[in-house]
Amino acid sequence: MTDNSKLESISDLLRRDVIEMTTEAGSGHPTSCMSCAEVFSVLFFDEMNYDPGDASNPGNDEFVLSKGHSAPIWYASLDRAGAIDEELDSLRKLDSHLQGHPMPISLEWVEEATGSLGQGLSIATGEALAAKKQDRDYHTYTVLGDSEVSEGQVYEALELASYYDLDNLTAVVDVNRLGQRGETIVGHHMNWYRDRFSSFGWNAEVIDGHSVQEIKNAFENSHASDRPTVILAETVKGKGVSLTEGEQGWHGVPLDEGEMQDAFEELPDPEMPEVRIPQPEEQEKPSFQEKKVDMRTYEQGEVLATRDAYGNALADLAEARSEVLAVDGEVSNSTRSEYIKEDNPDQFVESFIAEQNMISMAQGLSIKGYEVFTSTFSAFISRAHDQIRMAALSEAEITVVGSHAGVSIGQDGASQMGLSDIALFRALRESRVMYPCDGNSARKMVENAHKSGNMDYIRTTRPETEVIYGPEEEFPIGEFKKVEEPEDTDVVLAGAGITVHEALEAREMLEREGVQAAIVDIYCVKPFNSYNFRRFVESNSGKLVVSEDHYPEGGIGEMLGKELEESNIEMRTLAVDKIPHSGGKQELLENCGVDRKAIKKQALNLVEDS
Amino acid sequence: MTDNSKLESISDLLRRDVIEMTTEAGSGHPTSCMSCAEVFSVLFFDEMNYDPGDASNPGNDEFVLSKGHSAPIWYASLDRAGAIDEELDSLRKLDSHLQGHPMPISLEWVEEATGSLGQGLSIATGEALAAKKQDRDYHTYTVLGDSEVSEGQVYEALELASYYDLDNLTAVVDVNRLGQRGETIVGHHMNWYRDRFSSFGWNAEVIDGHSVQEIKNAFENSHASDRPTVILAETVKGKGVSLTEGEQGWHGVPLDEGEMQDAFEELPDPEMPEVRIPQPEEQEKPSFQEKKVDMRTYEQGEVLATRDAYGNALADLAEARSEVLAVDGEVSNSTRSEYIKEDNPDQFVESFIAEQNMISMAQGLSIKGYEVFTSTFSAFISRAHDQIRMAALSEAEITVVGSHAGVSIGQDGASQMGLSDIALFRALRESRVMYPCDGNSARKMVENAHKSGNMDYIRTTRPETEVIYGPEEEFPIGEFKKVEEPEDTDVVLAGAGITVHEALEAREMLEREGVQAAIVDIYCVKPFNSYNFRRFVESNSGKLVVSEDHYPEGGIGEMLGKELEESNIEMRTLAVDKIPHSGGKQELLENCGVDRKAIKKQALNLVEDS
Repeated sequence: MTDNSKLESISDLLRRDVIEMTTEAGSGHPTSCMSCAEVFSVLFFDEMNYDPGDASNPGNDEFVLSKGHSAPIWYASLDRAGAIDEELDSLRKLDSHLQGHPMPISLEWVEEATGSLGQGLSIATGEALAAKKQDRDYHTYTVLGDSEVSEGQVYEALELASYYDLDNLTAVVDVNRLGQRGETIVGHHMNWYRDRFSSFGWNAEVIDGHSVQEIKNAFENSHASDRPTVILAETVKGKGVSLTEGEQGWHGVPLDEGEMQDAFEELPDPEMPEVRIPQPEEQEKPSFQEKKVDMRTYEQGEVLATRDAYGNALADLAEARSEVLAVDGEVSNSTRSEYIKEDNPDQFVESFIAEQNMISMAQGLSIKGYEVFTSTFSAFISRAHDQIRMAALSEAEITVVGSHAGVSIGQDGASQMGLSDIALFRALRESRVMYPCDGNSARKMVENAHKSGNMDYIRTTRPETEVIYGPEEEFPIGEFKKVEEPEDTDVVLAGAGITVHEALEAREMLEREGVQAAIVDIYCVKPFNSYNFRRFVESNSGKLVVSEDHYPEGGIGEMLGKELEESNIEMRTLAVDKIPHSGGKQELLENCGVDRKAIKKQALNLVEDS
Repeated sequence: MTDNSKLESISDLLRRDVIEMTTEAGSGHPTSCMSCAEVFSVLFFDEMNYDPGDASNPGNDEFVLSKGHSAPIWYASLDRAGAIDEELDSLRKLDSHLQGHPMPISLEWVEEATGSLGQGLSIATGEALAAKKQDRDYHTYTVLGDSEVSEGQVYEALELASYYDLDNLTAVVDVNRLGQRGETIVGHHMNWYRDRFSSFGWNAEVIDGHSVQEIKNAFENSHASDRPTVILAETVKGKGVSLTEGEQGWHGVPLDEGEMQDAFEELPDPEMPEVRIPQPEEQEKPSFQEKKVDMRTYEQGEVLATRDAYGNALADLAEARSEVLAVDGEVSNSTRSEYIKEDNPDQFVESFIAEQNMISMAQGLSIKGYEVFTSTFSAFISRAHDQIRMAALSEAEITVVGSHAGVSIGQDGASQMGLSDIALFRALRESRVMYPCDGNSARKMVENAHKSGNMDYIRTTRPETEVIYGPEEEFPIGEFKKVEEPEDTDVVLAGAGITVHEALEAREMLEREGVQAAIVDIYCVKPFNSYNFRRFVESNSGKLVVSEDHYPEGGIGEMLGKELEESNIEMRTLAVDKIPHSGGKQELLENCGVDRKAIKKQALNLVEDS
């Protein structure tokens, strides 16, 4: 236990640090740090067990800063703990590791990008759930702001953490009453917060957030409780400096040089006390079982949906690799991720209808060593796009699987159809987008995603399709498949997923009219080897018809258009360019102009033009 | 008041209807309808005031079906009320108005597409808030499923509806215990729900959802309460048929022909009773004040941020048009939507940090006649992409304004930078994407968005830029601006927003090297007049350098690449192709390769190649 007086001294020093850092940077959020100085002091110098010399020590407790704009006080705490050796006054500069909001690419202690609010509790939930599943005893902490408690994702996480009985999870809410432009809805009605958090089955501790003793007591109560705990810390924004204390208009505003000097007159300036940070118990990294992977394969001519092949491959991979985890949003019987449950129910996490929490929780699980495949309808993944965006900025390694892509789902109608998912996943840095058209390629996409180190997206299809590849076929990332390659090609037909099969039908129709079509399967939409593709099309007629079960914007056609911008290939794209209706699969493909007939017509136009 | 016995008869008939409709369609969700048959019977034949002969009667109470998969029982209720004249057994067919999930394009009574869960309460909140603001006395009702209560957006709406004291809003949760693949987290613990909803300041009524009397009483209590009310109706999924009643495995599964016949043996088959549906009081449509619009203009050479010009234009428009409403996510001092508050505080709605609810609530307000401009950082709009997707499927007329676009925001870092927003907004049907580069064009974009009938997106920039257009300049939708048009053009430089100014600087640098560059401003990214653009570039060197403060995928370069796919224009695109860092504006533009130097270099490459 660290003396209260020492912890109070550290709070003073942290306040001085964050003021100096942000004044030097000329921007940043000092007052949002000053409200939680005592919380950080107790957390980093008394409560958390961690080895300041080793960010990757498996025994370290986990910390997530949900209110990412308070990054300076995290950096300052790490600095004073001797965990980092950075120039604090380099904050927010281009060559600094101390970015404006936390970024894992810059600092080893930061494991998740935060700064889009309301996401940290979900990530922490994933980390705490990992500890339960791995039977490890690190504790997970997260600090939230009060403004972000308006984000719905917070309640998704509250429900899940409660459902999974995560008594190893402690959230602190820095209730400083003031948001960016004024007072929060709840203000300092601490009992309103208490009622809310309690109603989700959490242990709620309301305290004075500037009393180190009350903070210590609350953490003690947290460890004694068999529920996840929230510490509702009543605080004052800008605490410690009369100019800013409890005043509006100071969100995201640094003090100027003169104001800083005045503040330093007011703030105590003690020596940094000697503190012994509680060391973690020695722990091993989680070890996972590894057996030979033996995945089901399919014979050419068999018929099955790629979502079924996905479910099979996931189950087979999980059987051999115990770090594989399926996380699904209450639709596992549709996405087929439920197949994993048959032999390995422990490798399935039900996340219910709460896609935002699902993605961030998956990210938390992946940080703790799991290889997560997380799935729902491709349409509903857009619900969590901000979380996916932040996970990509974190360079998280998770695989997202979107089923029920495109109009080919049929009768359920437009709200259930993923028609912009390719655009959304392409527009992330370092993402990879895979779109299998048959059982064997779907299996191979799961292999590609396994231990890829990337954020991967696999798009699957609801209706059954014929297996067109042999069991041994390889599907390297970045490449494409020549499905049909006649000797004298008049036109190249490119498709992906369901439209590969439409293109194959179009090919037969064209052949009956004396036109020879090559067929290309764009099974990997991103990255894409445009050099090989361009060479292939140029040496096979130079004419290209692309069809996709997706909106035109950001889809396969636009990707190819960009990749081929320096070529002279004549290209035409067919995509879904209307709001689709309910209807049968085949009639919808036709109605939306991406079916065999439309492909044939466009191909004939191209061929006859020349 | 309609007799209980009549209402019970109608419940029986509705159950028969939905079974028949879904069996005929071969798909759909009969059991999710059967659990709320009594709720629909009381709502549509006793509780709600509406004119079955006139869906657009301004006195009608409002109804939102949040659990969109229960569409068949809504259709059946409207049919039995004489409000629609459709073939019920056409459900889910391509030529039917009765789509699988509710779609406004098909049926006048449907005002919002639902089927992505957890959104209806927010839309209803917007409609109820509109009634308060317009001092009108229609009541707003919505029916939710219990599975969707896991969606965080529900809590965002609970908080807002409570904050705005919406006692004219009644939500019914059909707590039938069973989700798609199993039991919900809460199951039938009705008091858990009661605690949760109460903790947000709602009046919560727990009832037997199959007792028409209890349903009636709950609605009566709802009207007596000065709080928004939730009726927590304990129900049984598949109620009324022994095969399905309370049984798992029946979600989204229709009965087959034989099962339907067996069900019909069990279900009573009364005559449709005569019912007098409570008629609405005569009400006028909301009338809004209309004055001459007088917007602030700027002189060439002035310097201001487009977000400031946006705020000014919004305030000026609101002064003249009382139907204009700003809805902002707690960042109005950054987006500048707060300028509206100065003279017209009633035309501002604070929606706090809850972007999902913000978008759906904005949609609800727009349904009731408001012209809504809803704003937050462009990065955070992605938080609500599913809601935007559904609003677009509803053909909602709202304008979304994203500030702080691109790396030019500077020090705050990647999490705060909108770098995929253009891709996201392009990939919607009927959307329009506008991106002004100076004060006068920003003002004109607000004029363009005014009464446009579309979902519009306006992207604004944080730093100040020079006004390059005169006050009288017009900016028609779909067109582009020739900013500089030298006599002998060596290369065309196209930019948008901040990169127009980088292109202008590049032009001067090129001129010093004897290279003449034309400058084009892509102020309207979607729709885009490719014919005029192509003609312009082709007749001005045929060489094009595009730079954008956005990721490459789905951005302006890909859009142009697609539009120009049939041309021989040599085109090179500069876009942000890495995870950006914190830093200064200009150094980040340079670091990410979209600044004047990069443009100049690429232009020289193109010119020298030829």
